[in-house]
Amino acid sequence: MSELVGVIMGSQSDWETMKHACEILEELGVPYEKKVVSAHRTPDLMFEYAASAAERGLKVIIAGAGGAAHLPGMVAAKTILPVIGVPVKTSTLNGLDSLLSIVQMPGGIPVATVAIGHAGATNAGLLAAQILGAFDPELQRKVNDRRERIAQTVIEKSVLE
Amino acid sequence: MSELVGVIMGSQSDWETMKHACEILEELGVPYEKKVVSAHRTPDLMFEYAASAAERGLKVIIAGAGGAAHLPGMVAAKTILPVIGVPVKTSTLNGLDSLLSIVQMPGGIPVATVAIGHAGATNAGLLAAQILGAFDPELQRKVNDRRERIAQTVIEKSVLE
Amino acid sequence: MSELVGVIMGSQSDWETMKHACEILEELGVPYEKKVVSAHRTPDLMFEYAASAAERGLKVIIAGAGGAAHLPGMVAAKTILPVIGVPVKTSTLNGLDSLLSIVQMPGGIPVATVAIGHAGATNAGLLAAQILGAFDPELQRKVNDRRERIAQTVIEKSVLE
Amino acid sequence: MSELVGVIMGSQSDWETMKHACEILEELGVPYEKKVVSAHRTPDLMFEYAASAAERGLKVIIAGAGGAAHLPGMVAAKTILPVIGVPVKTSTLNGLDSLLSIVQMPGGIPVATVAIGHAGATNAGLLAAQILGAFDPELQRKVNDRRERIAQTVIEKSVLE
Amino acid sequence: MSELVGVIMGSQSDWETMKHACEILEELGVPYEKKVVSAHRTPDLMFEYAASAAERGLKVIIAGAGGAAHLPGMVAAKTILPVIGVPVKTSTLNGLDSLLSIVQMPGGIPVATVAIGHAGATNAGLLAAQILGAFDPELQRKVNDRRERIAQTVIEKSVLE
Amino acid sequence: MSELVGVIMGSQSDWETMKHACEILEELGVPYEKKVVSAHRTPDLMFEYAASAAERGLKVIIAGAGGAAHLPGMVAAKTILPVIGVPVKTSTLNGLDSLLSIVQMPGGIPVATVAIGHAGATNAGLLAAQILGAFDPELQRKVNDRRERIAQTVIEKSVLE
Amino acid sequence: MSELVGVIMGSQSDWETMKHACEILEELGVPYEKKVVSAHRTPDLMFEYAASAAERGLKVIIAGAGGAAHLPGMVAAKTILPVIGVPVKTSTLNGLDSLLSIVQMPGGIPVATVAIGHAGATNAGLLAAQILGAFDPELQRKVNDRRERIAQTVIEKSVLE
Amino acid sequence: MSELVGVIMGSQSDWETMKHACEILEELGVPYEKKVVSAHRTPDLMFEYAASAAERGLKVIIAGAGGAAHLPGMVAAKTILPVIGVPVKTSTLNGLDSLLSIVQMPGGIPVATVAIGHAGATNAGLLAAQILGAFDPELQRKVNDRRERIAQTVIEKSVLE
Repeated sequence: MSELVGVIMGSQSDWETMKHACEILEELGVPYEKKVVSAHRTPDLMFEYAASAAERGLKVIIAGAGGAAHLPGMVAAKTILPVIGVPVKTSTLNGLDSLLSIVQMPGGIPVATVAIGHAGATNAGLLAAQILGAFDPELQRKVNDRRERIAQTVIEKSVLE
Repeated sequence: MSELVGVIMGSQSDWETMKHACEILEELGVPYEKKVVSAHRTPDLMFEYAASAAERGLKVIIAGAGGAAHLPGMVAAKTILPVIGVPVKTSTLNGLDSLLSIVQMPGGIPVATVAIGHAGATNAGLLAAQILGAFDPELQRKVNDRRERIAQTVIEKSVLE
Repeated sequence: MSELVGVIMGSQSDWETMKHACEILEELGVPYEKKVVSAHRTPDLMFEYAASAAERGLKVIIAGAGGAAHLPGMVAAKTILPVIGVPVKTSTLNGLDSLLSIVQMPGGIPVATVAIGHAGATNAGLLAAQILGAFDPELQRKVNDRRERIAQTVIEKSVLE
Repeated sequence: MSELVGVIMGSQSDWETMKHACEILEELGVPYEKKVVSAHRTPDLMFEYAASAAERGLKVIIAGAGGAAHLPGMVAAKTILPVIGVPVKTSTLNGLDSLLSIVQMPGGIPVATVAIGHAGATNAGLLAAQILGAFDPELQRKVNDRRERIAQTVIEKSVLE
Repeated sequence: MSELVGVIMGSQSDWETMKHACEILEELGVPYEKKVVSAHRTPDLMFEYAASAAERGLKVIIAGAGGAAHLPGMVAAKTILPVIGVPVKTSTLNGLDSLLSIVQMPGGIPVATVAIGHAGATNAGLLAAQILGAFDPELQRKVNDRRERIAQTVIEKSVLE
Repeated sequence: MSELVGVIMGSQSDWETMKHACEILEELGVPYEKKVVSAHRTPDLMFEYAASAAERGLKVIIAGAGGAAHLPGMVAAKTILPVIGVPVKTSTLNGLDSLLSIVQMPGGIPVATVAIGHAGATNAGLLAAQILGAFDPELQRKVNDRRERIAQTVIEKSVLE
Repeated sequence: MSELVGVIMGSQSDWETMKHACEILEELGVPYEKKVVSAHRTPDLMFEYAASAAERGLKVIIAGAGGAAHLPGMVAAKTILPVIGVPVKTSTLNGLDSLLSIVQMPGGIPVATVAIGHAGATNAGLLAAQILGAFDPELQRKVNDRRERIAQTVIEKSVLE
Repeated sequence: MSELVGVIMGSQSDWETMKHACEILEELGVPYEKKVVSAHRTPDLMFEYAASAAERGLKVIIAGAGGAAHLPGMVAAKTILPVIGVPVKTSTLNGLDSLLSIVQMPGGIPVATVAIGHAGATNAGLLAAQILGAFDPELQRKVNDRRERIAQTVIEKSVLE
């Protein structure tokens, strides 16, 4: 089966965060590809990646970046696919810069932004699955089952000692 | 054709912002419904709305709210559909409170957050269309055509005098 | 004697913070219960908890959560009891996100918000005791005695060497 | 019937905000008093007010202030009653300064903080009523009825045209 | 004489700010061109503009944008010329989003960022002139004369009545 | 010689910061006293301390506090002496809360605020000495000598290898 | 009598704010001078002003500036007199930039910072008077009388209708 | 060959950050000098340094500073050369204070501001080289080659395992 989700990130150091998106896709059996693509250091590669994504069969792109995080927004400008942006935590401003650089897109080109860091990457994987799941009952059921298992765990462990 | 997108908001006063999402859906011919559903004042209504959304045929929910903006996240907790959150600008903190309340979701329940205010609502409409478009070539083409028309306009008006 | 205060929190990891609320209640002899209840992962449980709190005899609810912290506000929407919200410190935005998500409630549903983190949890316990104490002279005296002991300690240790 | 709630504020100009707390108390039939008491310009008056509040029969104090907003916290230091703090919006920092000055109390002396501005003042009135209502079924019912009326209105007006 | 400075901006509405850069260049007799080039709506045009700037004889590029302001950084990624970024004030976050999106570039691709809004645009024009002036004594003298005239005016008007 | 400067702080834990003020006073031979005085835990002691400061011969008060830092402003409200406020760094908001709580005083009661943390405490000591020095040529000369020695050291060490 | 306080500001437009400092000095009969001195446009004039201030008989300098507000800190670096800094409100960041630029001085050179804007300027005048008053009982009494009159007014107007 | 770039910083402790600017200049063979020059502790030295920079043959100045970072702006006020400002990360506000103190310059005196910390210092070195390179094809080629090597490395390492 060909890849449905492309997970890209601005640098190798973002992998520590972005792997959480991949773990979710793995767990749910969603075929995906992953790659380092830098908006600033490899702009042409980024444009090629984004421009060819739809015809290569991808349905959703997840892009993570930190600081002046231009990757998600620029990829969104070059593809008609929904793009999920993950703000990576930064050592100076804790990812507030990443968040604003990703979420404050002008009218016309949306980026579906999730939380800063680990939780955001996890949710990017889930959001991709939910988007695909809206048209794939089997996948939707899997996401639902996962939620129910987690709810069950929360309930079982809800007693504090 | 039944509605594919549900546009909800926390109060009547959010309509000024959220109408921009509806205008986009209208323009692109995406069937949608719209409603005021308050997380805090009508919590049960909100839960019913969210819980029944998928079986009623909706594919995407757009939820706008301001301040301690709990509507998008709580709806997301009660539906398996992708939920797009629009942070409405507030009179005190300009929507920074709305943005953080919507985007900083814990791992497990994602909200696809867009920009604060007008631009965000416009982009919520487009993002919904792009999500649907990933499985509807006709709609995807419409979104693409819209982009190209806008690019054309930017280019035609790019000369400043 | 039945429990008067319910201490809930969004996840097990919040216990490190929320235990300080429980320690105060313990110290003052206020009967309380404690539980993990997640707004996003167990929304129905949260609603049941909140909706039944008053009839189960609780007089005050203390709810702690971090990030897009919806637990205090949603519980407040489902109970007529006063709800105290404790913003838990987050690894990315230090709890500023938690604070704004909890305190910026719209007119109609108040949450009594305290400081971020440890100090806030301690104060949540004290605030619950002061609320109960307004109608329980014995408890009020205990809170007062505690304050006086602490003031005495501050004065005794006020000399720095 | 003697006053149960004391509504105080740092200056005449805060009345525009704080009147919303009084309107709620009025509407719910909660007897209250109101006064300008300045932490910085009339510190002795403030201390006397706070120190005598409990014996004068007050059960809850609502204190509003802006900027370096010390009134709620200092009143809380001088009374055993629960104190609700309302951060008044400021012309420079929009009330973020007021909010942090009120909410970030050290462990030992809590202030029940509500939202910045109008919504916060409304909620201060409701919170006071909910605190009193925990021991006054009649008042609790009134607060509940108010909520139900508002929910009804939201539902009736939920259709947008 | 061919243009030495390219002044570009993300949308027509940025002209109100960016015209101040052009006024300075005009005043100092620096040949320049100006154009609307949108990173998100006309990404290919932006890349072509940036990639051909050096060979067309430009020596400095001034790029203004607001919100998730990707124009300056993406242009910088596609040209070896120094790029000056002007954060345009936004209606929601006052340009703090623009500032962080422009200034927080990762190591490798610098953007010379100036102040938010009008003052920043003026200074972008001056900075471009100072960069050119480092290799053009005549222009450097002009910038210096301008400074001296302004200093003289400040001194003459320094008496307040 | 009687004490000229009173150095107070909200809790023992502030000493780590505030000792830097004392070290400067020591070094410059300015007689001072130091004490823990808590605005919230010992409000009466604070008022007595402030009210009697001038008649006890103090000329300047240095007050350090963190979080909802009310000590400097409340002391300023109860004494006619100049009060220097030192915002102590906090574990959650890094002292931004302390800074705003101290500096944003309403018109009528000033607090001379210095930087957050260690540097601020050092500068509080120097500012006190400069205030006293405006009327004590000997002390003024000492502060000047200290500056010159430091400038000399900076110059000597200005070569980096 | 020669001037004791120098009131300076970075530009004519700061006068709207800084006049409030002068009004206080006028009201209290403190002889002062006022002048526009720009750190960036007239740096030499600023240095001369600061370097000669003490020998000209000034005892305190009040300096107001906005944005990257370097005037107070640079004047403080060139005089041994106490310098009071007034952060002027800015159109983009509301004076938060001015505040941080003034207050966050490194250890060695203090600036006595007051609130942003109008209230800060008023307090700068009062702080100067309190500094002088520490060695001038007559002036100290005047500041005290002013406080008492204001307290009296607050008390008289404390009843809200 | 005489130095073309002057790298200065406010204190020895800034070297840890600023060395990254020097490493770039070294790598690209740009002759430079480096020195500690403090705006606040050695203001005269700073003015002399800035005033003589152009005639000594420097073409660009890089100035790094933290907190109330006045060095870049004051140097810019005393030289006609382009000045690049590097905001050094601070222990309290993470360099947000440094950034705003450097970037928010008033119209008339620009500072070319780069990112906070390490990445900013690296980019300051690159920006200086790009400014010089606009008039030195050999240097421009070197900067370009460096970019291409880095792009190549990104591409080679783009596969994540």
